[in-house]
Amino acid sequence: MKEKLTVVKVGGGIIDEKEKLQKVLERFARMDGRKLLVHGGGRIATAIASRLGIETKMVEGRRITDKEMLDVVVMVYAGLVNKDIVARLQALGVNAIGLAGADMDVMRSHKRPEVNGIDYGYVGDVDAVGDSALYTMIESGAMPVLSPITHDGKGTLLNTNADTIAQETAKALAKRYDVTLIYGFEKSGVMADANDEKSVIPTIHAEDFPRLKAEGIISGGMIPKIENALKAVECGVKSVRIMSAKDIGSNSGTIILS
Amino acid sequence: MKEKLTVVKVGGGIIDEKEKLQKVLERFARMDGRKLLVHGGGRIATAIASRLGIETKMVEGRRITDKEMLDVVVMVYAGLVNKDIVARLQALGVNAIGLAGADMDVMRSHKRPEVNGIDYGYVGDVDAVGDSALYTMIESGAMPVLSPITHDGKGTLLNTNADTIAQETAKALAKRYDVTLIYGFEKSGVMADANDEKSVIPTIHAEDFPRLKAEGIISGGMIPKIENALKAVECGVKSVRIMSAKDIGSNSGTIILS
Repeated sequence: MKEKLTVVKVGGGIIDEKEKLQKVLERFARMDGRKLLVHGGGRIATAIASRLGIETKMVEGRRITDKEMLDVVVMVYAGLVNKDIVARLQALGVNAIGLAGADMDVMRSHKRPEVNGIDYGYVGDVDAVGDSALYTMIESGAMPVLSPITHDGKGTLLNTNADTIAQETAKALAKRYDVTLIYGFEKSGVMADANDEKSVIPTIHAEDFPRLKAEGIISGGMIPKIENALKAVECGVKSVRIMSAKDIGSNSGTIILS
Repeated sequence: MKEKLTVVKVGGGIIDEKEKLQKVLERFARMDGRKLLVHGGGRIATAIASRLGIETKMVEGRRITDKEMLDVVVMVYAGLVNKDIVARLQALGVNAIGLAGADMDVMRSHKRPEVNGIDYGYVGDVDAVGDSALYTMIESGAMPVLSPITHDGKGTLLNTNADTIAQETAKALAKRYDVTLIYGFEKSGVMADANDEKSVIPTIHAEDFPRLKAEGIISGGMIPKIENALKAVECGVKSVRIMSAKDIGSNSGTIILS
């Protein structure tokens, strides 16, 4: 039987608010068993870019990453945010190790080609996860903290969506572990009524998704999130949970199964 | 017999100039055997701080690191510089892994108390090197790249002199390896005449140092560098070489022996 591994992704506003982040990390530190953390960048990169006089350009919620913006996201995600999280986890007794994709080649990607005439710049689409290196680290007692920066193997770093990194890592490690993937965000889960935190749908099976989408129950930014989750369960991840980051470690939120 | 390990420190202007840095990394990549790289921060942190409207205060060549400056050095040293070096080394076929002190607790320090009434701020004096974690990594085929950021074990990151990190790491690993420590910088070595690159002193023994200092042959910023080197050889490091970073891998420069 394979050992259990929990891959947790936290992002959004939680990264920006130090006290909220601390509480999430405290809950994460108390979680039993093997685990791995993936973090997003929050709005700090935008704030730092603005102070440096670099304009943030977004197309359909995605950051356009020119060379200057790449330097900012590398500094903020792989430096400031990653090392802050690692230092806090160490203080909580977790033997964390912060990684960007170039570190031991754990996340290799290629620069995204133009999509419908849009050049996203230094944005990477993941090609390979270094599951062997991650496995060795985890089995030696280390707890990887992945920042959303990958590399192309030719010396260039690339900005990559943190949800995708969590999904790809969970999928790659499903060969070696019984993987649960948790997306921690600011809402309580996938809600039938966007304005009612109590309307969380407890379980979504792959077969329910087309209907939920057709009926408009799942819409907007939740669609790619669930599509991501479904891809993970199709590729061997045991379950995906979409839940409030502040409840991490509990069984609340929405569980997505194949 | 212990295996050989070479600890190489590069800093100063080499970090700032991408083409020079690339050549140094190419030479480093070709070096045989187990190795570990320590890098400084160069002048990029000062430039970024200035663009962010943060004033750089130096006292006797040391940066005063207030909270805002700490964020800048963490971003630049542990993020931008470290991950750039790691990505380039990966492209050169070296299985590099970039680390700050909090990562697997590899460098723990305490905040420096006031010295002669000067508060250096978030500056760390090294207490312990995680030699066991570094050893495991190196033996598993990884090549650590250490940034000059340490942590206090209580969640706070601290800015630490890169020469000191190289020295402390070399000393800690001397228990497990036959360690050679190389300081790569912009000059050809320790020179008898500061204006003559050909006046490099090939060998300095611990017993020669007081005389060389008294005669003024070694002066200024070279004094703490050699004191650092002598401390390393006193504590088990086999030899220290002070040499031009661009010649790394050769036997040029000054070798310092106990």
